[in-house]
Amino acid sequence: MLIVQKYGGTSVGDCQRISNIAKRVLETKKQGHKVIVVVSAMSGETDKLIGYTKYFSSLPNDREADKILSTGEIVTSALLAIALNESGYKAISLSGRAAGIKTDNIYTKAKIKSVDTKNIEKYLDDDYIVVVAGFQGYSDEGYITTLGRGGSDLSAVALAGALNADVCEIYTDVDGVFTTDPRIESRAKKIEKISYDEMLELASLGAKVLLNRSVEMAKKLNVKIITRNSFNNNEGTLITNEEQIMEKPIISGIACDKNQARIGMVNVDDKPGIAAEIFSSLADANINVDMIVQTIGRDGKTDIDFTIPKTDIALCRKLLDDFKDSTQSIEYDENIAKVSIVGLGMKSNSGVASKTFSTMASENINIMMISTSEIKISMIIDIKYAELAVRSLHSAYELDK
Amino acid sequence: MLIVQKYGGTSVGDCQRISNIAKRVLETKKQGHKVIVVVSAMSGETDKLIGYTKYFSSLPNDREADKILSTGEIVTSALLAIALNESGYKAISLSGRAAGIKTDNIYTKAKIKSVDTKNIEKYLDDDYIVVVAGFQGYSDEGYITTLGRGGSDLSAVALAGALNADVCEIYTDVDGVFTTDPRIESRAKKIEKISYDEMLELASLGAKVLLNRSVEMAKKLNVKIITRNSFNNNEGTLITNEEQIMEKPIISGIACDKNQARIGMVNVDDKPGIAAEIFSSLADANINVDMIVQTIGRDGKTDIDFTIPKTDIALCRKLLDDFKDSTQSIEYDENIAKVSIVGLGMKSNSGVASKTFSTMASENINIMMISTSEIKISMIIDIKYAELAVRSLHSAYELDK
Repeated sequence: MLIVQKYGGTSVGDCQRISNIAKRVLETKKQGHKVIVVVSAMSGETDKLIGYTKYFSSLPNDREADKILSTGEIVTSALLAIALNESGYKAISLSGRAAGIKTDNIYTKAKIKSVDTKNIEKYLDDDYIVVVAGFQGYSDEGYITTLGRGGSDLSAVALAGALNADVCEIYTDVDGVFTTDPRIESRAKKIEKISYDEMLELASLGAKVLLNRSVEMAKKLNVKIITRNSFNNNEGTLITNEEQIMEKPIISGIACDKNQARIGMVNVDDKPGIAAEIFSSLADANINVDMIVQTIGRDGKTDIDFTIPKTDIALCRKLLDDFKDSTQSIEYDENIAKVSIVGLGMKSNSGVASKTFSTMASENINIMMISTSEIKISMIIDIKYAELAVRSLHSAYELDK
Repeated sequence: MLIVQKYGGTSVGDCQRISNIAKRVLETKKQGHKVIVVVSAMSGETDKLIGYTKYFSSLPNDREADKILSTGEIVTSALLAIALNESGYKAISLSGRAAGIKTDNIYTKAKIKSVDTKNIEKYLDDDYIVVVAGFQGYSDEGYITTLGRGGSDLSAVALAGALNADVCEIYTDVDGVFTTDPRIESRAKKIEKISYDEMLELASLGAKVLLNRSVEMAKKLNVKIITRNSFNNNEGTLITNEEQIMEKPIISGIACDKNQARIGMVNVDDKPGIAAEIFSSLADANINVDMIVQTIGRDGKTDIDFTIPKTDIALCRKLLDDFKDSTQSIEYDENIAKVSIVGLGMKSNSGVASKTFSTMASENINIMMISTSEIKISMIIDIKYAELAVRSLHSAYELDK
């Protein structure tokens, strides 16, 4: 098999931990597999380097900043290669450039455009363990780029896709994806298998394991991901396409997001294009609108409710000022939570919505907004009921069984 | 003019200092010169990185180790480029590879073979300040190499030579080369101009400023060096060829080396080839023999005295064991110092030797070994007289005037 393994910052946090990772990599190699390892910078290193660059400017030259940031992963990759060499196995570290990862020219948050696998394949054929510095590539202009948050995961998924690897193992310091946040519901269980789409909907559950950018790329390239804990030998969670998941659970997991705020625009003039105007204005300012609910207009008026990240409230207030003549009042509510239940089985099971709403009702939790997709129901509720809602739903769907 | 400036580890020790260096570089640029800056890693950084590599092995894979070490200079060079960009000047950082510095394949102590100046010249022509990561190049095999101790100076001198720069300024935390070690003789004076050959002979005086490897390369490439202090605006010391130095002082400086040990082989069988055998054996073990004195053989016996670095004594004892049947006894004396007086004017001034010896005699200092060159007299004396000898000679030759 060809296996890509990716180890995050805490897994390679110091030399002792890099030594442990080397043992793990060797176990895989000794089983006769071809192994590519993608590593992050030692935890704290990237922040230190960013700190250096920010000393000189709040907006340092981004091409030079990327060159600096990229050194963190270069150091870890070469250290791991040294550790592997010591065990008598051939290993070589490759920078993002040497690994053939081509990106666009958007420094500090570059997108991967293609992967030239020639160099890696040469070393794999020559029985090397190939250690790739994650989080980086090189631009059309020939300079080093970095891929932004979660970039090392992207490196791993892109390499796994380009090389048609059998699996891409993402190692972090948690066991995998859970049915809900174990800090909210201690009876949360690790999910064994989950589809890309469910994972994307459960973003907040998976965020510590894998950002949506990586899941989206894995889905596109059809890369089978296993997220595992580098500090134990537990099995982890397999993230794959729907077809690979035989037994489709009605509900896979319950996510809770407390970082949203609700904007309620009351009695907006119900004329064509008003919603488009509002949301274009927000989009132009890069405000990410999540849920949108618009009631049917009555008496030439309509209500528009939507949610945005709390951090964008100030900016949003400023923009909506332009619409104050077209609306009776605008409410800003930060005390909300979004609770979502996600499951492939929803597609073929009716009654999920009613069970969900009756669970909420039995706890006297008022639902302010609802939005649904094929595999998800999201509800906006008062933030003080967030944990109660998650626990009630978790047990109503027997996710702790 | 085309000016190469090199800043050492303490000069770029933190972001504040890098900011100061940026100001200095800009002053030069504003005078209308083309400027190339070569930088070391922040002080302490290289040791930290070496520490990482040694965690895994006393002899870590040297190709990977060089990749790790090279990141220190890459970070500093990019930070300086950021600082310069902030001031509104075009600046770009180049790794040793991008700067075209080709080396052999001897990782961790590579030798520069050639410099391809195409890339640098392109940026200079486009009015960029070019900041080069010192201490590194790339091998025939295409991997990053580092140049060993003092490597950033070598980078600077090699670039100055290849680009035919008008001057190569080496910035450290001392004012230049002194007539002797100011810790021994507080009245030591900074030397204004000195020839390459004198500088080479005064190695111990210049060691903190410039290693002999760099002086040798500067001499070969005819690169004019000025060593200056990056923390003040003092003038520094010009190191150049003899022809550039109009007024040739009889004595330029006095060096003192306490790191040598004396080996005395008494009554060695005086047969042809015995000295060759002894010194080949030491050379094969990479022991650097400095002074050698052999008396004329009498009664088929001869005395051979020589000095080696103190650190090699144990190894030397082992090797000389092979010769114990050919010699009456072998003395090992670590309590010695080598005091050297150096000056171009010696060539045309007789009487230097006698004045030197009489100065020593007047202080009752016994001279154990003497060796001379055209521009140097070196003496081995008891280590306890080292400072006294230096001060006496310094004042006898009026170097404090």
